[in-house]
Amino acid sequence: MHVMVIGAAGMIGRKLVERLAAEPGALGYEVTRLTLVDVVQAPVPATLSATSTAPAVDLSSEGGAERLIASRPDVIFHLAAIVSGEAEADFDKGYSINLDGTRSLFEAIRHEGRNGPYFPRVIFASSIAVFGQPFPEKIGDEFFTTPLTSYGTQKAICELLLADYTRRGIFDGIGIRLPTICVRPGKPNKAASGFFSNILREPLVGQEAVLPVDENVRHWFASPRSAVGFFVHAARMDTASIGPRRNLTMPGLSALVGEEIEALRRVAGEKAARLIRREPDPVIASIVAGWPTDFDARRARELGFTAESNFDEIIRIHIEDELGGRI
Amino acid sequence: MHVMVIGAAGMIGRKLVERLAAEPGALGYEVTRLTLVDVVQAPVPATLSATSTAPAVDLSSEGGAERLIASRPDVIFHLAAIVSGEAEADFDKGYSINLDGTRSLFEAIRHEGRNGPYFPRVIFASSIAVFGQPFPEKIGDEFFTTPLTSYGTQKAICELLLADYTRRGIFDGIGIRLPTICVRPGKPNKAASGFFSNILREPLVGQEAVLPVDENVRHWFASPRSAVGFFVHAARMDTASIGPRRNLTMPGLSALVGEEIEALRRVAGEKAARLIRREPDPVIASIVAGWPTDFDARRARELGFTAESNFDEIIRIHIEDELGGRI
Repeated sequence: MHVMVIGAAGMIGRKLVERLAAEPGALGYEVTRLTLVDVVQAPVPATLSATSTAPAVDLSSEGGAERLIASRPDVIFHLAAIVSGEAEADFDKGYSINLDGTRSLFEAIRHEGRNGPYFPRVIFASSIAVFGQPFPEKIGDEFFTTPLTSYGTQKAICELLLADYTRRGIFDGIGIRLPTICVRPGKPNKAASGFFSNILREPLVGQEAVLPVDENVRHWFASPRSAVGFFVHAARMDTASIGPRRNLTMPGLSALVGEEIEALRRVAGEKAARLIRREPDPVIASIVAGWPTDFDARRARELGFTAESNFDEIIRIHIEDELGGRI
Repeated sequence: MHVMVIGAAGMIGRKLVERLAAEPGALGYEVTRLTLVDVVQAPVPATLSATSTAPAVDLSSEGGAERLIASRPDVIFHLAAIVSGEAEADFDKGYSINLDGTRSLFEAIRHEGRNGPYFPRVIFASSIAVFGQPFPEKIGDEFFTTPLTSYGTQKAICELLLADYTRRGIFDGIGIRLPTICVRPGKPNKAASGFFSNILREPLVGQEAVLPVDENVRHWFASPRSAVGFFVHAARMDTASIGPRRNLTMPGLSALVGEEIEALRRVAGEKAARLIRREPDPVIASIVAGWPTDFDARRARELGFTAESNFDEIIRIHIEDELGGRI
């Protein structure tokens, strides 16, 4: 099977490819060819170098999607996007990449189908940003999408396209609405959501981290390992049971910032927990107050998607996957 | 105020213009200029001929939207669309007109804003086709949009765009999700929903009509007069109270086909009711079985939108507006 990962240089893209390298049978079939696409050349794990290529292609460029799809991949992971803050700051860029880029990909698949039977599976990374407040206490699977960002709007539109192209038999699509990924590896960044990961990742290596909100802020989380698991499961599952409602809110963990800190204390001790410095930031607090806090992701769980059930587990996964198993 | 009606040659467009002609103060302000746009030249009522133009413009054509918006209309009714059946039969045409045409209009408004402050009100005709089965008994205002047609997908996408462009201050948008319009004037057509109107309209003028489904089929209705009323209200209301959720399911009447027939019997007598010929059509019955049957349109009612509460009223409106008040 020819597998294509679009957005292969991003955090989840890289981890997905590492999983395919570490566990060749992960998808339930043999990956005979792997194409790792990004706007820059994506890293290729050494064990996959014989079967992999890593073209630098911008999906939103003229003919970009057609060139990719001409190779007729059987499974396409579409993870490429402009992030929320940038899509809000640059209206044209956000719509061009997040909406038009995705639509170009879907259209290229439709047109390729005219050259002979072609019906790839398309797994699309969506986001809980498709929801906008006010929310019920738990957001159910039938709650409406009223995004309050252009990013969320673009994701919600692509979800609708994915469902329609699937319904019309153009491809076999699944939309994966990701929780906030925690612990996000790498350095602290300026994303408003950064602190959720910073307050765990930094203390675990003896560094200070800033907490800009109250400990009773609640949010919705899954580990990077779970995120990769969602995509792997979506690539190997029997899609017949999904029906026409192809966009799924992934399971996750609803937890308080205070519960994150208690878990850190249990796993890494009081010394680590003391590295968290409280510096209330009303701007960040007000942004975060608009985010979903809890979901009843029943459909996805019934379809076999799984995530963590407590923060101790999320922290242990970070230690295993990023810190060589030791702190 | 400069008012533009796009889709002015369609059934609701024509009735909206007739209302503006009959009641010049309907919108709560003086209409100093009226532009009636359609792909063909729209009819201009004699009393409005001094202030009106009727350019034939295709919104999806290159530069079409920009030319229209260069005249800086203050209020834009966007009613133009390819209908459901055609959008399903012709994938490219449906997306081109229903999605790209609407997006061109929204983009033209955004670009016109660079030539000087410009903030028109945009009233967009959406549809209950944004919903897809299975449904709860009554579809509430927070039920998700999972359309099962490309038409419904295109309308749902335009709703998302309208909300985002409004949130970003580009225009003041309202999406009007119309019930099935009944009694639809004109001749019987081949639309699967045609019989809902045919079985009233034809017997009222002594003609036979075919009923292809069972009398216990339930559906969601409003008269053409109510539909025009929705658009007029959307053009004159204070939009501050709507908030960011700009797409509203309009109120309507949930009724059985049997209730339609009883109302016909009450208003026009047994002789009229006997003109309905039962000819069960399993294909039509199965299409209709997938349609919504009832809504709790609370938000729209609270915002002042109103519709009929029984079928006697719907039939009387048809007699007044289409048959000169007499049968």
